[in-house]
Amino acid sequence: MADKKLVEEITAMEEDFPQWYTDVVIKAGLISYSNIKGFMVIKPAGYALWEAIQSHLDARFKATGVENVYMPMLIPESLLQKEKDHVEGFAPEVAWVTYGGMEELQERLCVRPTSETLFCDFYKDDVHSYRDLPRLYNQWCSVVRWEKETRPFLRSREFLWQEGHTIHATAQEAEERTKLMLQVYADFCAEDLAIPTIKGQKTEKEKFAGAEHTYTIEALMHDGRALQSGTSHNFGDGFARAFGMQFTDKDNQLHYVYQTSWGLSTRIIGALIMVHGDNSGLVMPPKIAPTQIMVIPIQQRKEGVLEAARALAASLSDFRVKIDETDKSPGFKFAEQEMRGIPLRIEIGPRDIENGECVIVRRDTREKITCSIAELPAKVAQILPKMQQDMYDRALQHLKDHTYTATDKQSFEKIFEEKTGFVKAMWCGDRACEEKIKEEYGVTSRCIPFEQEEVAATCVCCGKPAKKMVYWGKSY
Amino acid sequence: MADKKLVEEITAMEEDFPQWYTDVVIKAGLISYSNIKGFMVIKPAGYALWEAIQSHLDARFKATGVENVYMPMLIPESLLQKEKDHVEGFAPEVAWVTYGGMEELQERLCVRPTSETLFCDFYKDDVHSYRDLPRLYNQWCSVVRWEKETRPFLRSREFLWQEGHTIHATAQEAEERTKLMLQVYADFCAEDLAIPTIKGQKTEKEKFAGAEHTYTIEALMHDGRALQSGTSHNFGDGFARAFGMQFTDKDNQLHYVYQTSWGLSTRIIGALIMVHGDNSGLVMPPKIAPTQIMVIPIQQRKEGVLEAARALAASLSDFRVKIDETDKSPGFKFAEQEMRGIPLRIEIGPRDIENGECVIVRRDTREKITCSIAELPAKVAQILPKMQQDMYDRALQHLKDHTYTATDKQSFEKIFEEKTGFVKAMWCGDRACEEKIKEEYGVTSRCIPFEQEEVAATCVCCGKPAKKMVYWGKSY
Repeated sequence: MADKKLVEEITAMEEDFPQWYTDVVIKAGLISYSNIKGFMVIKPAGYALWEAIQSHLDARFKATGVENVYMPMLIPESLLQKEKDHVEGFAPEVAWVTYGGMEELQERLCVRPTSETLFCDFYKDDVHSYRDLPRLYNQWCSVVRWEKETRPFLRSREFLWQEGHTIHATAQEAEERTKLMLQVYADFCAEDLAIPTIKGQKTEKEKFAGAEHTYTIEALMHDGRALQSGTSHNFGDGFARAFGMQFTDKDNQLHYVYQTSWGLSTRIIGALIMVHGDNSGLVMPPKIAPTQIMVIPIQQRKEGVLEAARALAASLSDFRVKIDETDKSPGFKFAEQEMRGIPLRIEIGPRDIENGECVIVRRDTREKITCSIAELPAKVAQILPKMQQDMYDRALQHLKDHTYTATDKQSFEKIFEEKTGFVKAMWCGDRACEEKIKEEYGVTSRCIPFEQEEVAATCVCCGKPAKKMVYWGKSY
Repeated sequence: MADKKLVEEITAMEEDFPQWYTDVVIKAGLISYSNIKGFMVIKPAGYALWEAIQSHLDARFKATGVENVYMPMLIPESLLQKEKDHVEGFAPEVAWVTYGGMEELQERLCVRPTSETLFCDFYKDDVHSYRDLPRLYNQWCSVVRWEKETRPFLRSREFLWQEGHTIHATAQEAEERTKLMLQVYADFCAEDLAIPTIKGQKTEKEKFAGAEHTYTIEALMHDGRALQSGTSHNFGDGFARAFGMQFTDKDNQLHYVYQTSWGLSTRIIGALIMVHGDNSGLVMPPKIAPTQIMVIPIQQRKEGVLEAARALAASLSDFRVKIDETDKSPGFKFAEQEMRGIPLRIEIGPRDIENGECVIVRRDTREKITCSIAELPAKVAQILPKMQQDMYDRALQHLKDHTYTATDKQSFEKIFEEKTGFVKAMWCGDRACEEKIKEEYGVTSRCIPFEQEEVAATCVCCGKPAKKMVYWGKSY
């Protein structure tokens, strides 16, 4: 009974996708709601996943020369206001500290919504000569944005993220870094999270507040909605001029620095759930899974079973393995392991022991593989990368199957009436058309992809000559 | 000239210890002051040290079954007020958020100064049965306390730390966990940071706001002042009663849980500097040093020198090694490596190459060791643990040399007039005596050590029969 219940409590994704998502987030033990709207408690299973993401991504950053630092959590109002577009973008959604202890502060301080202004304020005094450049700093921290609508991981008032902030001697170097970090995000998503993404540029309307341009990776969720999964911004010398960030170049003249920033947040956990999850819960790609294998003894009270299960777990010490020795029923343990998305389950009972065997069950396909105990480590070493690849391939197939092409307004309309996914369509470049499409269909421009195709000659909205092909979609 | 200057800029510790400390913190590139009082920018060298500390300590926590989580950064005022002693201790020094975006909040939220109240609020709904216990959660985060006097790492308005919060079915289990975590801190300090500490209990006056009792490890700085380096608190069921944290035990009755918390912060970096540093800068224990070896080529423009230096660095890939190929002079590079406290420097020049040799210089003793290039990795593998042990032995000797015993008020007075260090003296247990000692000599009770000695029969202050031996000292 209890086994059934655990599974039945999840809404099927076909029935109500948003409810399925919330169910998984809660039942898989990733988070718990706190008593402040939009703030969540990240529980051990959720935080272990974030630690794994941090460790993979941080290694990729460091391989490109990035160093970690830590900036203050609070930003004086006057500092936030120095760059005009930036303050307009963020001031409406920050949390303000007005009292320190018993005293009212002379100047309000906001909890960082992002830290461009702090990095600028730091760099302007820390960098003097071309010898000091580039500076490639990153920080892992939490930020606060006072959002109206909130959903766990996808949009919360506080979230964890990394924000990289670099400064360079030339515009070209800054542009190369902006693109490099987008590529790092895309590789991380593809290789570690098994999530394929579309790389491209945000339109003027959708770019980051204060950026010259913003690059993005866009992933497609199981319900056909898009999720912006990582962004990389090129600021040119805009902030440098606002903050006076100058350096003496080899020509002995003062020049403004060129700047980038790039960020990826706990939102990516939302992507992981919505790309790979199924009606039994989470499915975690083996590379990123905090626990890769759960060993579940069958009839564990029978003599020799627990010992055999432990020996088996010990033989898998090259992997992240756990053994479930609780007094729950095997069925309950299966359901729990599936809900938590642990990639492999290994079942071992009295009959298996007699035959010198055990049963491996893949979380993604539910394929059951009987394997001799002696060959288990070699078999697992084979299955895990295979599963990682299969998960990527399926996600890529899903993305392809849900990417449509519209050549004119009629076909554009028809697709969004009937389907949800990416729609490739031409655009004249006018903000008015972008806004009209959003108003009429609830659809936004996801990105101007790096890989351009000319699917038609005219803008899907106004019919004037087209400049760019754009990915459109409904987004989270 | 430039080489000299780099060293000369540091104040000697014998001349002005606080100034020496500030000089090292800045010149070793650990931090930079931000433009908000009491908030600092932790620069790459400082943050890499914190990452090393995190990684060692986190592994020790996990080995005792601890899991990491993340709680909200903000605490509603009503939640902070639930435990009377706790709110009295912290409310005067918190930062208050009063606006979210453009709207004034209905209830003020404070930036967490510590998260007992959040963990209680979470546990009360998350734990139902004895099967759910114990819960052993920890978080790595930043906290804010609106201190009046601030000094980098030692006392700042924002600092990074970990805070562990556990709940248990029995008082005994909670007490065992409180002591276990203190031991984890003591072992970490001794084995990883080469810092010996005194373990003991805080007096009622000095214990944590809301705790039943507080255990502490106290370290002795080079100037003879004490630094509280880690604390572990047993809350009994005080918070459980205030928050209604109950569980159904095996007897089918509702019981309150027993609770602990324990924390260690970036303050420990201050200890590291003041225990091991010297007049040339930082000295980092090899185990924790982000870079263990700096290879410095001599006459690097001569043919073959850079290649030999690189080959030598490559041969040391089992260690954390860097090579300084900048166009600074060797003397400048030596000074910089010494300032940053990198444990070993390896010098290699044309004559060394001819002889198949190089020179190893220990940062702590400045001992120069000539070594054949072929035997270098083996030699380094020998020297690093030796240096770690020597650093601990010297720190322990310093602690012993600066620990005095006072049997009566006169000798107590005399010691503190002439010396700075720990003073062991008896205490009657009355808060009045503790306050009088603080007022008269500026000296606080550091701890009632676990290892008690009866150095006299009567209280060093009032002369009444003594109950406990106490370590007294001037503190940071």
